[in-house]
Amino acid sequence: MSDDKQPLINRLKSVEGHVRGVQRMLEEDAYCIDVLRQTLAIRRALEKVDTLILERHLNTCVTDALRSADHSARDNAIAEILEIFAATRA
Amino acid sequence: MSDDKQPLINRLKSVEGHVRGVQRMLEEDAYCIDVLRQTLAIRRALEKVDTLILERHLNTCVTDALRSADHSARDNAIAEILEIFAATRA
Amino acid sequence: MSDDKQPLINRLKSVEGHVRGVQRMLEEDAYCIDVLRQTLAIRRALEKVDTLILERHLNTCVTDALRSADHSARDNAIAEILEIFAATRA
Amino acid sequence: MSDDKQPLINRLKSVEGHVRGVQRMLEEDAYCIDVLRQTLAIRRALEKVDTLILERHLNTCVTDALRSADHSARDNAIAEILEIFAATRA
Repeated sequence: MSDDKQPLINRLKSVEGHVRGVQRMLEEDAYCIDVLRQTLAIRRALEKVDTLILERHLNTCVTDALRSADHSARDNAIAEILEIFAATRA
Repeated sequence: MSDDKQPLINRLKSVEGHVRGVQRMLEEDAYCIDVLRQTLAIRRALEKVDTLILERHLNTCVTDALRSADHSARDNAIAEILEIFAATRA
Repeated sequence: MSDDKQPLINRLKSVEGHVRGVQRMLEEDAYCIDVLRQTLAIRRALEKVDTLILERHLNTCVTDALRSADHSARDNAIAEILEIFAATRA
Repeated sequence: MSDDKQPLINRLKSVEGHVRGVQRMLEEDAYCIDVLRQTLAIRRALEKVDTLILERHLNTCVTDALRSADHSARDNAIAEILEIFAATRA
């Protein structure tokens, strides 16, 4: 994860600003549906971050684990992906 | 939305801190799966905020719209709920 | 729900055929990813059915409940929508 | 996918019966919310099938691809997982 992490951090800084924006909307009594549209946009932005992290994870840690001779490392790598897959839907 | 908005704002402040925590995890090269677990927790927290906002919206704006004699206000209220419902899944 | 239910039943007949098609794919040892693409398409088709049912429900039962003088009918109608909203994401 | 496919097929047969049951509910003018509860249960059952197929896919095709010397096979295996991951949320 050490290189290329700056774009991810930048995306999260943008999410952080977006969350502050929603707080302001609530303080200013914005229309509920407009608030919900913004919180949905924040979730979409977080999903994009997740996809980028997962892509990197598959290309690095998972590839290493599945190429290794260590059965438990392989099983663990697969179990973690299934965990994230299930949690993503939940 | 004017009363009871403070608990929602507090939840969003907590989300904001959580997003900053994930930035720190990335800076410190945390394990990808641990990062994904945190971003999923943030999405769950945002979903809880959404449910609370929707509950309030149904109890106020939607109830008023559906009780009114104004057909277009009623149709609009229903169309907005369906929009949020569809976007929530998307 | 009595009128206009035939289009919903037709959509579900189509989903049923789609599910049988996936069984055949498994019997014929189709590629996993192709199978997953089909099961995702089935879920999308079910979501469309859900949206149509919810739309009808908002226009009929929920409108009646929110227009009634019966507080517990109103509370119940709103609680059921929130239940479906939460379960949809889960 | 050749062995162990019978449990998946059985799960899909059960989904098929469940979809027919929802058609009957519509024919008998069941309460909308009860219908939605059933279609949500069907989606949950399909998600379980998806998880089992993905697990098998990771243990077989993806493991083979990531262990191979073929860069494009590896890239393709990862791209397909990301596609399914993104579509699952969509």
